[in-house]
Amino acid sequence: MKQAISFSGINRRTLLSALAVIPALSGPILSAATQVQAATSSDALPSWNDGPAKQAIIDFVRATTDQASPKFVAPGERIATFDQDGTLWVEHPMYSQVIYCLDRVPAVVAKKPELRNVGPFKTVLSGNREAMAKLTMKELEIILAATLTGMSVDEFNAEVKKWIETAKDPRWKRPYTELVYQPMIEVLRYLRDNGYKTYIVTGGGQDFVRVYSERVYGIPPEQVVGSMGGTKLGYDKAGKAFLTKEPKLLLNDDHAGKPEGIHLMIGRRPYAAFGNSVGDQQMLEWTGSGDGARLMMLLLHDDAKREYAYGPAQGLADSKIGTFTPALYDEAKKKSWTVISMKDDWKRIFAFE
Amino acid sequence: MKQAISFSGINRRTLLSALAVIPALSGPILSAATQVQAATSSDALPSWNDGPAKQAIIDFVRATTDQASPKFVAPGERIATFDQDGTLWVEHPMYSQVIYCLDRVPAVVAKKPELRNVGPFKTVLSGNREAMAKLTMKELEIILAATLTGMSVDEFNAEVKKWIETAKDPRWKRPYTELVYQPMIEVLRYLRDNGYKTYIVTGGGQDFVRVYSERVYGIPPEQVVGSMGGTKLGYDKAGKAFLTKEPKLLLNDDHAGKPEGIHLMIGRRPYAAFGNSVGDQQMLEWTGSGDGARLMMLLLHDDAKREYAYGPAQGLADSKIGTFTPALYDEAKKKSWTVISMKDDWKRIFAFE
Repeated sequence: MKQAISFSGINRRTLLSALAVIPALSGPILSAATQVQAATSSDALPSWNDGPAKQAIIDFVRATTDQASPKFVAPGERIATFDQDGTLWVEHPMYSQVIYCLDRVPAVVAKKPELRNVGPFKTVLSGNREAMAKLTMKELEIILAATLTGMSVDEFNAEVKKWIETAKDPRWKRPYTELVYQPMIEVLRYLRDNGYKTYIVTGGGQDFVRVYSERVYGIPPEQVVGSMGGTKLGYDKAGKAFLTKEPKLLLNDDHAGKPEGIHLMIGRRPYAAFGNSVGDQQMLEWTGSGDGARLMMLLLHDDAKREYAYGPAQGLADSKIGTFTPALYDEAKKKSWTVISMKDDWKRIFAFE
Repeated sequence: MKQAISFSGINRRTLLSALAVIPALSGPILSAATQVQAATSSDALPSWNDGPAKQAIIDFVRATTDQASPKFVAPGERIATFDQDGTLWVEHPMYSQVIYCLDRVPAVVAKKPELRNVGPFKTVLSGNREAMAKLTMKELEIILAATLTGMSVDEFNAEVKKWIETAKDPRWKRPYTELVYQPMIEVLRYLRDNGYKTYIVTGGGQDFVRVYSERVYGIPPEQVVGSMGGTKLGYDKAGKAFLTKEPKLLLNDDHAGKPEGIHLMIGRRPYAAFGNSVGDQQMLEWTGSGDGARLMMLLLHDDAKREYAYGPAQGLADSKIGTFTPALYDEAKKKSWTVISMKDDWKRIFAFE
């Protein structure tokens, strides 16, 4: 989920609250990313405690894959969509993609020295967190545009790949790609084993997530739906064609943009949708408006010890990341969406535990 | 291929020359669509004559799927893209989607009687071909917008489904979906049998083609890349969410828009690309700019007897459909793209022959 990520507009409060928490921009510390191991238990969801959330998943899969079931769904129609930030991996204290953009500023300035003394770049380079917290939305957008567009698709992919393999989360001191929720990895696998096509539907940049989605989630690039920017075809001196990332937003894949993005990229309504915030609300509403068995799940971050606690009456009240409002909680209850309690429903959070 | 279809701008000459050829707008004549039969021969390409085109396809598949080959491509990377109009099915004398739009005019006017006397609608309703041939680009765009947008996605799908199952091509007196090229159906199947994901990449409307792509080509909706319009989320009185097709073009999937659309929807460069005109040129250039084995093929319509002859020195010189220019022909030769001669390379054109 996201409030308004993508270069169309990053949630400023998110960044501001986050800047106060992160000790330093993560440097390129070399480290091999640990692969999440496959579940070996005969139980497809070994990291889940028995309870209504786990049961809802199992009941849904049985109802839609048993040919004798009145709610049977043909294999080709089996689509499941997952928000990323706060649903598949940690989103606190700041979206990883925003950290990437801030980390990229020195390299961008090295290539374009004229930016060194331009407002937002100067501020980020200074490392002065108080000044960074005062960056305006417009200034933040300039940084996102400068670090996410203007290069070829191949260059961008190579830059993100290098960063994602080396940057580390300051709390766990591990690559961000290890901060994926093992119970959700098990759900992805369980659904795929039962003929579901699994998609990421993120407010984050589509091209960013595609770089690591296959390795980390088993989801190929073509099954990543995210905020989408335009590209432009060009030719090098040898006549070879290449694509350049343009500062033009085609779709902000958040809130209503999620069902719109799903239709654009997939063309079918999902049977299952997983999210954790108001940015995912419309995706769940759209999924739940279809006929037959539909599974709508919301992850509640209520585990301050093992991860973070935020959302309704959970503290971190000043944070705008992962806004799980009381109104969303009420809608979930009213519509029989299943709320997953990280604290109660998950035996473990990360594969490395 | 298309010169400029989608509601962003239809090729006017295409329409004008076509209007002179079509005897009447195709009516909803009930008829079951005949399924294209699977090849039963041990030869995967039984409708192809032996020759350089057939050999190029077989050599490409062998080189990219034999693990001992230096040009081996991992299964997940195996992407093949196909233009639709003029590459997978007949595009003469008019794109089927344009016929659909003209056929829809009476229904649109029935719902909005105030349109009855509005210029382009009045002209189409009159059936006066001379007057229709004088429609301006602006007027044609109004008709496309009125017939392709403004309704819910579900309504649109139902309308196209009904039309595609009943409308008939006036020359063959068969549903348009039977006018698919059997040799290309065999290529699609042969590639899929060898681990390739097959995509349609069309200048036509993405949502239009998705309605029948699975049944006709074995290509699911999520593997159709086309000209893309925006949608807007809404709720009915019962609170159910639905999407409305908006008159907002996100991407014109033609010419440079083809590689841009492929990147947007797939995120990887294809290893094989099939087209038939200048609208496909950039897709083939982009495909050919990748490393390793790449297959670029252009279909030449040189069979006036069994289908149509158009393109370089083939007659129909006044037609702008399927523009296979001499310059494109030269580029194909220079870059070792393979030109498929419909006349020489195909044993049969349609499954019903």
